[in-house]
Amino acid sequence: MKRFIIALTFLFALGAAQVSDPLLGRAKVSFSPIPESPPAIPGNAITPAKVSLGKMLYFDPRLSASQLLSCNSCHNLGLAGVDIQQTSTGHGWQKGPRNAPTVLNSAYNVAQFWDGRAADLMEQAKGPIQAGVEMNNTPERVVATLASMPQYVERFSAAFPDESEPLSFDNVARAIEAFEATLITPESDFDLYLAGDSDALTAVQKSGLKVFMDKGCVACHQGVNVGGQGYFPFGVVQRPAGSIRPEADKGRYQVTRTPSDEYVFRSPPLRNVALTYPYFHSGAVWSLEEAVTVMGSTQLGIQLDPQEASEIAAFLTALTGRQPVVDYPVLPPSTADTPKPELDVTAPAG
Amino acid sequence: MKRFIIALTFLFALGAAQVSDPLLGRAKVSFSPIPESPPAIPGNAITPAKVSLGKMLYFDPRLSASQLLSCNSCHNLGLAGVDIQQTSTGHGWQKGPRNAPTVLNSAYNVAQFWDGRAADLMEQAKGPIQAGVEMNNTPERVVATLASMPQYVERFSAAFPDESEPLSFDNVARAIEAFEATLITPESDFDLYLAGDSDALTAVQKSGLKVFMDKGCVACHQGVNVGGQGYFPFGVVQRPAGSIRPEADKGRYQVTRTPSDEYVFRSPPLRNVALTYPYFHSGAVWSLEEAVTVMGSTQLGIQLDPQEASEIAAFLTALTGRQPVVDYPVLPPSTADTPKPELDVTAPAG
Repeated sequence: MKRFIIALTFLFALGAAQVSDPLLGRAKVSFSPIPESPPAIPGNAITPAKVSLGKMLYFDPRLSASQLLSCNSCHNLGLAGVDIQQTSTGHGWQKGPRNAPTVLNSAYNVAQFWDGRAADLMEQAKGPIQAGVEMNNTPERVVATLASMPQYVERFSAAFPDESEPLSFDNVARAIEAFEATLITPESDFDLYLAGDSDALTAVQKSGLKVFMDKGCVACHQGVNVGGQGYFPFGVVQRPAGSIRPEADKGRYQVTRTPSDEYVFRSPPLRNVALTYPYFHSGAVWSLEEAVTVMGSTQLGIQLDPQEASEIAAFLTALTGRQPVVDYPVLPPSTADTPKPELDVTAPAG
Repeated sequence: MKRFIIALTFLFALGAAQVSDPLLGRAKVSFSPIPESPPAIPGNAITPAKVSLGKMLYFDPRLSASQLLSCNSCHNLGLAGVDIQQTSTGHGWQKGPRNAPTVLNSAYNVAQFWDGRAADLMEQAKGPIQAGVEMNNTPERVVATLASMPQYVERFSAAFPDESEPLSFDNVARAIEAFEATLITPESDFDLYLAGDSDALTAVQKSGLKVFMDKGCVACHQGVNVGGQGYFPFGVVQRPAGSIRPEADKGRYQVTRTPSDEYVFRSPPLRNVALTYPYFHSGAVWSLEEAVTVMGSTQLGIQLDPQEASEIAAFLTALTGRQPVVDYPVLPPSTADTPKPELDVTAPAG
């Protein structure tokens, strides 16, 4: 009976909070919190053996031809899963074409890369490893590298116990995907707010949330990841400056070859956006307020005043969640059979 | 009384082990184990606040002009504190002149760098940050970068509480030194052996230890770090091949300008040497057996037969200790005042 009364009181208090905070009621329609545990990945069960192997691979520079670059080079877990560079730098100090999206909470995105060309994280992981301006490696060389180290061979067998060929390029990507799925950032102030703690947001952040919903930002940035769910033209209403949307990068058109996909991009997820500067696929804008203002004009055709932009930016800082902390993995030693680092920029890997 | 008998029995057993293993008696004269706790650093007390700050700095790529390279890039804690490259690659993909020595147990070395040009780890830490082919930064820019982040300002105040100017380039180096001093690798099989466990080495490793001492390797490689204590010509008896000892790099001569220091180097510490391939200041040799054979001919004027070289190599693998495991640090976010990444190779940093 006592429990029942406590439960009733709790429900009443919760109801009262929602009644007294209609903003929260609206927010709950559009957003949902990051769960405390990683999402399930269809076809790739997240097991401790796989996650532990995936973490080693994520940090192992021997996945790159030079043996200098790892997944963590551009998706640095000390820096919210990005490289805080305009666009990424890879093999031979070559500059890549786009800003590195964060790995944090990336399992919640509808697809991967700015143009969604990878259906999931497994497919994504294979891209940078092979890209000439990134890790410049080949699947054959990656498998040969890992197969040369008995510790890796054992760990692949443990992670993929029912397979006749546990050490494959696909399983490299599967293990990385399993590890990446664990890289979630729950417990942001916004998540506490969504859970009913009306005081988790400041008054300014609440104003920002209201403007964010009133002006229509929420149309592309909603759901658990506050974005990352759909594809939209960058420049719905007004064409962005050439420095922000370079002419040559036609976005999703390069994937679908459909004219209506010109300059279409996956809406970026805004979780931890205060940490994932600089902004846009071009990385051309360093200030969150400026990015918000650009979005207002290009996507919504409105001129946000500085106070509105600043309130929205304040709301966006509430999307910073608890950053994952991982043990830096001790990696297996190379052997006489391990391919040597290949730093040459002109020579093809292999 | 019971305790006394146990103690007596223990001492007797210990004595018996040493009597039955004269090799151990000889080894104890030349070597000592890595202690379980970090060494004291004169003038730089190792405090938790300093170590924690030093770890952040060690992993923070914003210590480099490009904001892409950290201490950990060339002294990777997942790879025994080295980069497993012939010579290191830095700013602009430039190749440095020498192989990166390991940071592990480096506090036990008489001085730092291959030529001993830095008296201690504090002085060492300042070198790569400023080297044009490494991190290409300036002390002013490093301090401005860190001072732009309130979290770093707080942490410097906590780590250097009695100072009027806690955030200085000297203190950057002091904090890194304090962290690096904790990177020790106790509990190698050889250390267990030195502690009296005669079975900690295999028969082949014991043969290797004996050859190591009989042939004279121990003259340059002794003490707690099995080397790292003195300076010796590379090529005492016979000049090494030009690929292994390039003519242009005259070693310690470049520091002292003393003709007798031509091609003189600090004897490398051999702790974890099985993991710190490739070998020599040139990084020209990838196999431990081959490195051992080269040492025999150039330093001792003897031709080790393949079995001897292989036994010594087996002994050297017993120098692999417990690798330090650290939490990968979550770094403070940049602010509007943080200098932007400077990737240009020709432009001076600053």
